[in-house]
Amino acid sequence: VSVFLVGAGPGDPDLLTLRGARVLSSADVVVVDRLVDPRMLELARADARIVDVGKYPGAGSAAEDQAAINELLIAESRAGSLVVRLKGGDPNVFGRGAEEVAALTDAGEQVVVIPGITSAIGVPGLAGIPVTARGESSVLTVVSGHRVDDDDALPYNALAALDGTLVLLMAVEHRARIAQRLIEAGMDPRTPVGAIERGATSDERRVATTLAELGMVDLRAPAVIVVGAVAAHMGALGQRGGPSSRLEAIAALV
Amino acid sequence: VSVFLVGAGPGDPDLLTLRGARVLSSADVVVVDRLVDPRMLELARADARIVDVGKYPGAGSAAEDQAAINELLIAESRAGSLVVRLKGGDPNVFGRGAEEVAALTDAGEQVVVIPGITSAIGVPGLAGIPVTARGESSVLTVVSGHRVDDDDALPYNALAALDGTLVLLMAVEHRARIAQRLIEAGMDPRTPVGAIERGATSDERRVATTLAELGMVDLRAPAVIVVGAVAAHMGALGQRGGPSSRLEAIAALV
Repeated sequence: VSVFLVGAGPGDPDLLTLRGARVLSSADVVVVDRLVDPRMLELARADARIVDVGKYPGAGSAAEDQAAINELLIAESRAGSLVVRLKGGDPNVFGRGAEEVAALTDAGEQVVVIPGITSAIGVPGLAGIPVTARGESSVLTVVSGHRVDDDDALPYNALAALDGTLVLLMAVEHRARIAQRLIEAGMDPRTPVGAIERGATSDERRVATTLAELGMVDLRAPAVIVVGAVAAHMGALGQRGGPSSRLEAIAALV
Repeated sequence: VSVFLVGAGPGDPDLLTLRGARVLSSADVVVVDRLVDPRMLELARADARIVDVGKYPGAGSAAEDQAAINELLIAESRAGSLVVRLKGGDPNVFGRGAEEVAALTDAGEQVVVIPGITSAIGVPGLAGIPVTARGESSVLTVVSGHRVDDDDALPYNALAALDGTLVLLMAVEHRARIAQRLIEAGMDPRTPVGAIERGATSDERRVATTLAELGMVDLRAPAVIVVGAVAAHMGALGQRGGPSSRLEAIAALV
């Protein structure tokens, strides 16, 4: 029938939108990524078919994997299913959402995008980092470090000149190179960095460091890396692990 | 008792998170902005007190207005209320969320931030614009045009050099100046621009233009302005006003 590209948000199923939850609870088929928290699937119908395409990567190149996912979505929609394609974060922020929309539209299938909370903003926010803050940062930039395989892959000079908040997604592998290039481009090596592994999950881990040290700290993917003055706020709120039991009780209640 | 800073998302109440909705439905007091859709308040308890601080602006300077809001939040929390501070978009994206958190924390009150979908990403997404797309844009930058009162207010050279997607919030008033400075800094005057007024509301209006023409087109605040190749996608999906009645029916059903 049609495909709904639904942004699942940063991890916690509770951060899905009302619309996303309603669509998910009506789906015949749910196609999920590796980055989607399995608890979110409890919102689906008991008889919904769940297809985990997080297993595709490795079978072929990224492009081949994406082509296979596109074909699957098209085939399920043509077969008359209401398909929900659950994507971590927001489908339009480094999520290949545009490619899936284009493939479905080109195939004559109907597609609706339902936004989600991007991890680039939600994960820092839950860790106490405001990505913008008056007097500290009035520019937010988000880039992917996924394909940083040569020195020119990111516009380092411009990024260093912005003097705002830089959020790096999928950058764990190449973080040393990225940090080095940013410093060479003029960014202060002492710039605070907050790195959040598995944000908005029960396994969340936070690492406070500096740009100069980013390449040396232990860090595992998936992680959101925030570079800029605002990163110094990390953990200040302590929404996870920090607040009083009274507040935790309130949070659980509501 | 405590204050929950809740991101209300881009407009449509349906784009609130599950957690945000639950907290809102438990609140004793709800403190709302101008940018929050009144329909969202239907989620609050019938006996909840609604305080509209969108009326404060005009009474004093922006700083005085913010100080009054901070005092209100502190006083309500101290009086034992469960306070929900509903903010349009995400509290941490040009929403003064960090200031309210700091004021409450300094006053010894407990505060929890619940992220929302930022209008900078959600509004374009609902209008068919993916803020990032492979081969078109791999850098997303968000800035506020609110205080562009001199030529140096934004890092125009760096923004022009990024060659990605630039989202301008609160920039309707100064859009001509901003566009002119971006062109002087080297951005192509033919760069596609998609401007979305009152995004994610029933009054949404879309204007497709170019950077060179942005200053001349009719545009009213509030609007989200997207500058970059991806803006050419606007309306392609037609989630509002465009799709077939069959799809609308499905969307309504779910």
